[in-house]
Amino acid sequence: MNNKLKVAIVGSTGYGGVELIRFFQNHPQVEITSVISSSSSGESIADGFPHLTDVILRPLDGVDPAEIASRADLVFTATPSGVSAKLVPSLLEAGLKVIDLSGDFRLKDGTVYEEWYKHPAPSASLLEQAVYGMAEVYGDEVKGKNFISNPGCYPTATLLGLIPAVEAGWNDSTSIIIDAKSGVSGAGRGTSLTNHYAEMNENFKAYKLNKHQHIPEIEQVLGNITGTPVTVTFTTQLVPMTRGIMSTMYANLIGEHSDREIVDLYRKYYENRPFVRVREPGIWPSTKEVYGSNYCDIGFAADPRTGRLTIISVIDNLVKGASGQAIQNMNLMMGWEENLGLNMTPVYP
Amino acid sequence: MNNKLKVAIVGSTGYGGVELIRFFQNHPQVEITSVISSSSSGESIADGFPHLTDVILRPLDGVDPAEIASRADLVFTATPSGVSAKLVPSLLEAGLKVIDLSGDFRLKDGTVYEEWYKHPAPSASLLEQAVYGMAEVYGDEVKGKNFISNPGCYPTATLLGLIPAVEAGWNDSTSIIIDAKSGVSGAGRGTSLTNHYAEMNENFKAYKLNKHQHIPEIEQVLGNITGTPVTVTFTTQLVPMTRGIMSTMYANLIGEHSDREIVDLYRKYYENRPFVRVREPGIWPSTKEVYGSNYCDIGFAADPRTGRLTIISVIDNLVKGASGQAIQNMNLMMGWEENLGLNMTPVYP
Amino acid sequence: MNNKLKVAIVGSTGYGGVELIRFFQNHPQVEITSVISSSSSGESIADGFPHLTDVILRPLDGVDPAEIASRADLVFTATPSGVSAKLVPSLLEAGLKVIDLSGDFRLKDGTVYEEWYKHPAPSASLLEQAVYGMAEVYGDEVKGKNFISNPGCYPTATLLGLIPAVEAGWNDSTSIIIDAKSGVSGAGRGTSLTNHYAEMNENFKAYKLNKHQHIPEIEQVLGNITGTPVTVTFTTQLVPMTRGIMSTMYANLIGEHSDREIVDLYRKYYENRPFVRVREPGIWPSTKEVYGSNYCDIGFAADPRTGRLTIISVIDNLVKGASGQAIQNMNLMMGWEENLGLNMTPVYP
Amino acid sequence: MNNKLKVAIVGSTGYGGVELIRFFQNHPQVEITSVISSSSSGESIADGFPHLTDVILRPLDGVDPAEIASRADLVFTATPSGVSAKLVPSLLEAGLKVIDLSGDFRLKDGTVYEEWYKHPAPSASLLEQAVYGMAEVYGDEVKGKNFISNPGCYPTATLLGLIPAVEAGWNDSTSIIIDAKSGVSGAGRGTSLTNHYAEMNENFKAYKLNKHQHIPEIEQVLGNITGTPVTVTFTTQLVPMTRGIMSTMYANLIGEHSDREIVDLYRKYYENRPFVRVREPGIWPSTKEVYGSNYCDIGFAADPRTGRLTIISVIDNLVKGASGQAIQNMNLMMGWEENLGLNMTPVYP
Repeated sequence: MNNKLKVAIVGSTGYGGVELIRFFQNHPQVEITSVISSSSSGESIADGFPHLTDVILRPLDGVDPAEIASRADLVFTATPSGVSAKLVPSLLEAGLKVIDLSGDFRLKDGTVYEEWYKHPAPSASLLEQAVYGMAEVYGDEVKGKNFISNPGCYPTATLLGLIPAVEAGWNDSTSIIIDAKSGVSGAGRGTSLTNHYAEMNENFKAYKLNKHQHIPEIEQVLGNITGTPVTVTFTTQLVPMTRGIMSTMYANLIGEHSDREIVDLYRKYYENRPFVRVREPGIWPSTKEVYGSNYCDIGFAADPRTGRLTIISVIDNLVKGASGQAIQNMNLMMGWEENLGLNMTPVYP
Repeated sequence: MNNKLKVAIVGSTGYGGVELIRFFQNHPQVEITSVISSSSSGESIADGFPHLTDVILRPLDGVDPAEIASRADLVFTATPSGVSAKLVPSLLEAGLKVIDLSGDFRLKDGTVYEEWYKHPAPSASLLEQAVYGMAEVYGDEVKGKNFISNPGCYPTATLLGLIPAVEAGWNDSTSIIIDAKSGVSGAGRGTSLTNHYAEMNENFKAYKLNKHQHIPEIEQVLGNITGTPVTVTFTTQLVPMTRGIMSTMYANLIGEHSDREIVDLYRKYYENRPFVRVREPGIWPSTKEVYGSNYCDIGFAADPRTGRLTIISVIDNLVKGASGQAIQNMNLMMGWEENLGLNMTPVYP
Repeated sequence: MNNKLKVAIVGSTGYGGVELIRFFQNHPQVEITSVISSSSSGESIADGFPHLTDVILRPLDGVDPAEIASRADLVFTATPSGVSAKLVPSLLEAGLKVIDLSGDFRLKDGTVYEEWYKHPAPSASLLEQAVYGMAEVYGDEVKGKNFISNPGCYPTATLLGLIPAVEAGWNDSTSIIIDAKSGVSGAGRGTSLTNHYAEMNENFKAYKLNKHQHIPEIEQVLGNITGTPVTVTFTTQLVPMTRGIMSTMYANLIGEHSDREIVDLYRKYYENRPFVRVREPGIWPSTKEVYGSNYCDIGFAADPRTGRLTIISVIDNLVKGASGQAIQNMNLMMGWEENLGLNMTPVYP
Repeated sequence: MNNKLKVAIVGSTGYGGVELIRFFQNHPQVEITSVISSSSSGESIADGFPHLTDVILRPLDGVDPAEIASRADLVFTATPSGVSAKLVPSLLEAGLKVIDLSGDFRLKDGTVYEEWYKHPAPSASLLEQAVYGMAEVYGDEVKGKNFISNPGCYPTATLLGLIPAVEAGWNDSTSIIIDAKSGVSGAGRGTSLTNHYAEMNENFKAYKLNKHQHIPEIEQVLGNITGTPVTVTFTTQLVPMTRGIMSTMYANLIGEHSDREIVDLYRKYYENRPFVRVREPGIWPSTKEVYGSNYCDIGFAADPRTGRLTIISVIDNLVKGASGQAIQNMNLMMGWEENLGLNMTPVYP
């Protein structure tokens, strides 16, 4: 027990936080030594989350970097955007490894951050220092680092679906349209009319068309890969379900490529990557097939009639889109197997 | 009572059939004189649909054109595709007015029908005779006719969303991508693993990518409007809800047009049309806002960054996408007000 | 148009209010002349309820009894409990007929009210004056009156299910246990963690065991019928759905009675009552079979093994449990047919 | 790896089967050596359950006792009732340990079995031999045995909720009424109109009142505990959700007992039992608080007004109500820690 990595979770009373707790319960190398909440310090986490009764016994701690550092080696900051920007510097100074889930350190250009997030950006040096932890693409850069910025939920589904085709030059990157759908948990636990059960049940709802803050994150990565600026059309929509993201992506094909060739390209790209599963031609994954797990499943439809490729990519927004990917990054930072503690079969049905 | 139009419903034990019954209960000019089911003749419809207890007292009739003609003036055929192709000729010969909901008479070219529907096509003369009853577009052609082919659910949401921009030449019709989502009732009452509650709940699922039989219907209408063949990319997806379609449509803008201009264009196009509501710029309709009603609500996002227009169009698939539109067609055929018996506020929440 | 009854709705931006609007759109004798909201006066109701776009054009009015009286003959108060207690006296003084949906005037004994509702009770004379508008039981008392207290949602389903057996002396009224389940809309539009979509979806939740304020309402009516005080065990539970109440009721049978005899007893009791439908023995109604309608459907299971009778009663909580029943009361007050404007088939599926 | 227990799963393409696979993926002492399906032998399980892609690589085996015995030490029979009755004898003869999930071996009296299950009963000696594996009550009898009959889903929630009070003599066992609610997955993967999404969504539905085959199972256990025959009133109802059972139980209290005393009684009874969590007075568990986990959570409301005790007990029907409890029984049979491989926090939200 003494040799385990000690981790703390800031924002443990959000959905990202409780998912970290769920996965750590079965991680052989990790011990949670502090669950932290700025608003509920001193209370039991089971008061607000009765499903954690008997699971976490230690009361919630407050947010004090020195105290966190005295208890933990690594901290996950599952905080709202804007909060991490202020908190993370002191955590790093206190000598902690940090994996940030907030989004504050994903964009390398502070002016772009401010344009889309409407907050002051963190310092340029911190933005530079943060490694964008998309394990299947940038995993080598994560190894041994001490500050990781965890990708957003929509960008994870979208980029894992687009990158192999874009990198191979099979997709015209000026033609990319992304029609993304998410379960309601993506908006967090705060109450609002949009996530009122009676308003969202039996409802399908579009929001923030072309305005979502995940757009520049997607464009930054695609631009890095193609070497030229990329702009995408991006639609976000809410599905009457709790978990799951499907990103449906469209682009003009460059050259003729059958579904078979595309499947093979992707399987090659994600060879030895335990969490990406590529479906056979003519079969597309549905969100339930990854529910509760760290998988990203992908399928294709190349259409000779229109010369376009449709890509379907699904994840569990709270796992691969947040906490699971964060743990995958932790594993890589620590030099462990990527899937340690994450081998959970989807919960089905 | 004697002056009322007598109507019969073939396929009254499907979802389209029971919706016709619901609306006719409040239609001042119509009397249902026969509810017909090939499989349950002689039984009470309330045995299979207890919500109709005390509503329809007459037992189900069998499918006999002469008998139908003896009881009714107009018949709705809410039958599976392939069945109407065989049945409708005899109904017309028996002197009945016919509104067909099956899809068998929507495509003017029999070879296209056979390619997409995989059944033998009806005769060319019948295909010619059938008026495509999209009231807001072809309403004048419906008036006084006796054989209407009712549009499909996906085409209704999609075409009402696309036509004004395409007709105005503001949308590049070679660039149209349609990402459509439907509630589960669209697949009818037959049981299958796809509509098993435990499989579809908390699930979002793509199917029939670029293969759906509604594609040629959309392309036929757009081709007629532009005067050149149009091909579209078309994705169909199931939402874990019972009712509702959202069609999210993408196209390159020709010229610069603000959301305001587009809203104005659409409001002009749909002036005096009681069932199309165009949202203000920056506001998009959700499916629940038309639940149970005959409305089609539309919103827009023109994106100067990408030069693309996103159009959001929602309907209730069983009402505006089937039975409601069929009644609207009936009203037009009979020379009545388009909205007679259809002024039902959406059921909310 | 000039001869129509003019009605105003206080609390029109709650779920009860918008349901009143939905039904009045097809009521031949009523015109809505004022929709009133204390919080949103001057705004369009369609801003908060886009499904009402083009339906209600007049902006929301404020709460001013004299102004209401200048515009309307009858007012529905769909206000939170505690608010009506203060508002209704001035509405009555202004000469308006009042149908109150709040619950403030249902209990005849002010001390019982204060114990369960935790507010000061209205004056004893007003409590006396208010007629408890359960149309199928007290309809004759409603006729011609000008102040009706509309029954609660749980009591409606429960009392319509219990009264015939209790009145016949077939149920031991000291043994009554009520296990009630409601859709989430019953708690109104206010946001809370309980009605957060991600918390309530895939969840079934008990609350307020033996503490719900509808208990004394049920006991008051049963006590009146039996002539002795009745106490009941009453469990309230939330179902992951928007609408619908099922009340499952248990009591010891007095004497031996078959399901057939019980069905006949109930059909006799509710003869000529358009909104109560009694199922055949061995068949029980489900909530969807009354969705969006004013029906109350009832079924039975008499168990010779245990000597107990189980009664299943379902309603739509927002219709028969609130707005529909209120309109039914209005029809009776005005001397119209009980079901005028209320003949809406349930929305199915 | 070589020292692991080899297990086979008959009925691996049902919901119970895939849940066994999910839990075994993290069980340190078990290796699945055969997944068996009578209908799909030779196919990949991932064809029908894509969520198991990359998880189970071995194709499905057929049902052949000798072959099963050559590959496995212990077999789970997650088969329909009636099938196990015929299959289990040959599995036991082949020397396999058997844990049966079908229900065929739960009732000790074959005539009672035939009355409720409508199949021929297994032999009396096998019924005698089968140990009823309710671990928290009969765990000591399970240890070292080789044939366990796994309890039903409704009886698990119900008996864990009732037994401590009944055994203490605080509940009048002649007064027990059980109002049980289940998610749709309880009826399995077979398609039917009842589990059609469009029919069950937004619906709450009662079925099999006083006829459910779990009634004699509950009565058998309660009768054993009290020493006299017990009959219960038992209502089963479907909730529009996939997983979860809530059993709401009513009985007359013998003596006066506060919620506090009752909570203490239950905590004492379930001391050191890792999977039963007893809520504080005034707090009741909801089904989501045990989702995907092996917990049974229990809460109480003792009502001095009526002298009755209400007990709320929740489980995940597919885990504690089926596969999780089966693994718990396996752990006890093998002399391992009861919770080995089962320490999964509920999936929340």
